[in-house]
Amino acid sequence: MAKEMTKIPRATLKRLPLYYRFVNTLKAKGENRVNSKAISEGLNIDSATIRRDFSYFGELGKKGYGYNIDNLLDFFKSELSDAEEIRIGIVGVGNLGHALITYNFSIHDDMTITEAFDIRPEVIGKSIGNVTVKPLSEMNEIINKQKLEVVIIATPESAAQAVTDQLVEAGIKGILNFTPKRVQVPQSVQVHQIDLGVELQSLLFFMKNYSSTLKA
Amino acid sequence: MAKEMTKIPRATLKRLPLYYRFVNTLKAKGENRVNSKAISEGLNIDSATIRRDFSYFGELGKKGYGYNIDNLLDFFKSELSDAEEIRIGIVGVGNLGHALITYNFSIHDDMTITEAFDIRPEVIGKSIGNVTVKPLSEMNEIINKQKLEVVIIATPESAAQAVTDQLVEAGIKGILNFTPKRVQVPQSVQVHQIDLGVELQSLLFFMKNYSSTLKA
Repeated sequence: MAKEMTKIPRATLKRLPLYYRFVNTLKAKGENRVNSKAISEGLNIDSATIRRDFSYFGELGKKGYGYNIDNLLDFFKSELSDAEEIRIGIVGVGNLGHALITYNFSIHDDMTITEAFDIRPEVIGKSIGNVTVKPLSEMNEIINKQKLEVVIIATPESAAQAVTDQLVEAGIKGILNFTPKRVQVPQSVQVHQIDLGVELQSLLFFMKNYSSTLKA
Repeated sequence: MAKEMTKIPRATLKRLPLYYRFVNTLKAKGENRVNSKAISEGLNIDSATIRRDFSYFGELGKKGYGYNIDNLLDFFKSELSDAEEIRIGIVGVGNLGHALITYNFSIHDDMTITEAFDIRPEVIGKSIGNVTVKPLSEMNEIINKQKLEVVIIATPESAAQAVTDQLVEAGIKGILNFTPKRVQVPQSVQVHQIDLGVELQSLLFFMKNYSSTLKA
């Protein structure tokens, strides 16, 4: 299949998981096609934006007919990974790491945490579900052997940059960073950060400005 | 203190945690003031956007002098909450809930999870750090008595809407939803969602489009 190599703009990519989820819901309801108006109403995004976004996805629809749902789902899946199963590693098996290993990421896709790493002797060798914690010193070798695509960092903040450097060296192209540390990486590596303290602050800022009734 | 009741625009609010964190870093380094150029370089946001954003924050700087760091921090803190300590509840004490209770949210602010709720008899009564898990049936009373500002939902997806409805009834104005369920609330309530599956998908979409070297 000749796939065009045009990059999808970042703003469009940010909406892709929403589209993916919405179209999946329609599929589960037995629908075969969807038009931009229905997506617009379902997601509260204006339909001009949706038509522009979907124009980057290739020939997935016909004018007046809408988009074919199976084609859309195939496209979204192809944009996640070329692999059948998406294999994820995690570094740092504290409380949060433990919770992430047992978390069901794979609601719609075959995304599984298959490897876990830590430096603490009391944690190494422990089994959590199907995952056995291995020493960090073996990480680079295992990343390559097991073809991990993404690694999650759930270490203490102070270890985040050193772990990141090791991941970059091992050839990892995607990092999900759960520490508050803003790690530095080369341009070829994507880092998404989930900073729980910042998320809470952000919610409080919105509450203060948009939830309260106006006071005199 | 007469504070203007003009709402801060949503786009500006989204950047507030970044500004807050950056200014805190400068404070820790012993700085007294900062100008928009330094913030622009530190955060990679253009300085016109920064000047416009900061114009909503009131009279915090002088032309040619920059912004006073203590004033900025006081302002950011006042936008988080009127309370000295921000008290947070959590519903659902599975692996993720347990990890969140032990997570250190309070790097810069007094944000603490002080109450936890569950419906499972085997979990109710358990102590995690300083928090004892209480039955969900007592939640509304405790929310009001303990003046909780925010409640985190870490239940199974299937329980999320019912818990949300109960929180709205109890008068909660801010919900941090860790389930994949898009919960419905009245306009006066703010919900921020952290959907870990969507975050992983989003990272994979970015990797596919921005990490790989171009193939012919």
